[in-house]
Amino acid sequence: MTITISVDVMGGDYGPPKIIPGVKLALDFYLSENHHHNIHFLLFGDENKIRSYLKFETLLYKHCTIVHKDLSVSNNEKPAQIVRLGVKTSLGSAVKAVATGDAHAVVSCANTGAFMALSKIYIKTFKGVLRPAIPAFIPTTKGLSLMLDLGANIKCSPQMLLQFALMGAIYINAYLGIKKPTIGILNIGIEEMKGTEAVQEAAQLFKAHKSINYKGFIEGNKIATGEMDVIVTDGFTGNIALKTLQGTATLITHLLKDAFSNTFLSKLGYLLCKKSLSKAYKIVDKRYYNGAPFLGLRGIAIKSHGDSDAVGVANAIKVAIEMAKNKLPERIEKQLMMDT
Amino acid sequence: MTITISVDVMGGDYGPPKIIPGVKLALDFYLSENHHHNIHFLLFGDENKIRSYLKFETLLYKHCTIVHKDLSVSNNEKPAQIVRLGVKTSLGSAVKAVATGDAHAVVSCANTGAFMALSKIYIKTFKGVLRPAIPAFIPTTKGLSLMLDLGANIKCSPQMLLQFALMGAIYINAYLGIKKPTIGILNIGIEEMKGTEAVQEAAQLFKAHKSINYKGFIEGNKIATGEMDVIVTDGFTGNIALKTLQGTATLITHLLKDAFSNTFLSKLGYLLCKKSLSKAYKIVDKRYYNGAPFLGLRGIAIKSHGDSDAVGVANAIKVAIEMAKNKLPERIEKQLMMDT
Repeated sequence: MTITISVDVMGGDYGPPKIIPGVKLALDFYLSENHHHNIHFLLFGDENKIRSYLKFETLLYKHCTIVHKDLSVSNNEKPAQIVRLGVKTSLGSAVKAVATGDAHAVVSCANTGAFMALSKIYIKTFKGVLRPAIPAFIPTTKGLSLMLDLGANIKCSPQMLLQFALMGAIYINAYLGIKKPTIGILNIGIEEMKGTEAVQEAAQLFKAHKSINYKGFIEGNKIATGEMDVIVTDGFTGNIALKTLQGTATLITHLLKDAFSNTFLSKLGYLLCKKSLSKAYKIVDKRYYNGAPFLGLRGIAIKSHGDSDAVGVANAIKVAIEMAKNKLPERIEKQLMMDT
Repeated sequence: MTITISVDVMGGDYGPPKIIPGVKLALDFYLSENHHHNIHFLLFGDENKIRSYLKFETLLYKHCTIVHKDLSVSNNEKPAQIVRLGVKTSLGSAVKAVATGDAHAVVSCANTGAFMALSKIYIKTFKGVLRPAIPAFIPTTKGLSLMLDLGANIKCSPQMLLQFALMGAIYINAYLGIKKPTIGILNIGIEEMKGTEAVQEAAQLFKAHKSINYKGFIEGNKIATGEMDVIVTDGFTGNIALKTLQGTATLITHLLKDAFSNTFLSKLGYLLCKKSLSKAYKIVDKRYYNGAPFLGLRGIAIKSHGDSDAVGVANAIKVAIEMAKNKLPERIEKQLMMDT
């Protein structure tokens, strides 16, 4: 069997200069792991630009099909505008490839709103899914937790939060093999009376649901402790929590860099710790958690950060391949049918 | 002139064992700085417990008056319950001391809801203030930014956010001397169409207001860059952003500790960097930013973290003293009158 991934090469802040090397990195990794499936990429975008980056990449070239598209999606365009352009854009046609069965999954760094809108139109959601959600893995002292929604839905009803919990549990099971993940709701306190009506009502729904291993509210300072496998929140709060986490990691990396270059002794000390530190840095490096599926779709669409470099793009593609092999949409459909 | 600070010694996770040493630390610091004012503390709580911690503290004893109170406020009690008990509690009577003019400011580690409710009843808000807000200083690559609200108001109207911006600007001016602070609204994107209706409407109000140096939306990953002096948000989002920031700092400190103790070389390296690193750690140590006033009150009430140790409590008291000297409430009243 061949796994086919469609890639919107024009999306995000950088386009081909980062995305093509990202595809190459993902291919190298895939082949080095000795997988049983063949792998193929559909690259959607400006053919000339794509060819110029593929010039000396003989191996990658063999695993690619280029599909020329004149139009790309900028970060500022409104989703409605992109939807009108549809398959004329590299994003729209990359998404459509999943709907037609030409690809098992689509990966794009383009703006979330446009990507989500096109995915809902072409790939469609499962019956009963109120709204798709975007999850993200968060580094913790124990390993990884999953947080969702990260920005697809700025206002969420308790029922939506319940579906996010169910879909998040399936995703973390497919990705990390966690059988009965602990689930918490992000809130400003752990006491029952704390928070908005939506989180309080959601807590009641979670408690009453047989498939959900609900463990209560969780505060922002506990996200990174790993005490919950899945952290459920609305897209506004989740987006801000995730980005605050990333911004804090950047601040601390900056402070450490300053500290290490402060004196002769600290420079020497840094050289001695460098190898051990690089592991710690990697744990909080957002590029290694890049790639989030839109959960609730009938196919696989993986959102990559707009500012992803090649390492980030390669990780998003790895998520796409894993989820294709794990048949994520089928698992979500099955679970949702059992639970409703 | 004598500056009098009333302290709820029983509040928070620890009570007297951390709060009395905190008062001592604040006094030592104050006296070492050679200030022009005298300083005095009103300590509200269990007299026996307080006396046992003051036994060998001759200097501190001279600067204190103990006011015995049988009742204290636990973290789980509902604000309404505390309000009924009023001045029978150490918290209630400590707050009341500001209202009666016996103290210039009150400091407590007790639960925010109860502290805020009592402050509104006894100290009262200025005419026209919709709701008091809680700000916090955030470490950034450039120094400090101020974020508010941090949990006093879980739902905020655009008009409330506008007042938060005005009060935040006065506070950062009083604290750091920043004359025309840049102001941003926390959102999930910087584009105008992004976010909830409340933040979009607030953006229009901010733009139109002559006293506000509005610079647009700011995302979570930019909080710690220092590009905005004041970051305005509702209390739900702000609370989660602040705590996520603190939790991420804890995670990274944990990862670094592991990295430094990893090999013989990394242990040696750590010893060489230790001094430079301790400065970096201090920058992200939340104890040094502890102490947040309820902005909009007619007097000064400083909320200290529930889990504050002596260093944290001492910093909260420092904020109380600074704001008393700077006549923060009078400045807020004056500015709000000019702006409405």
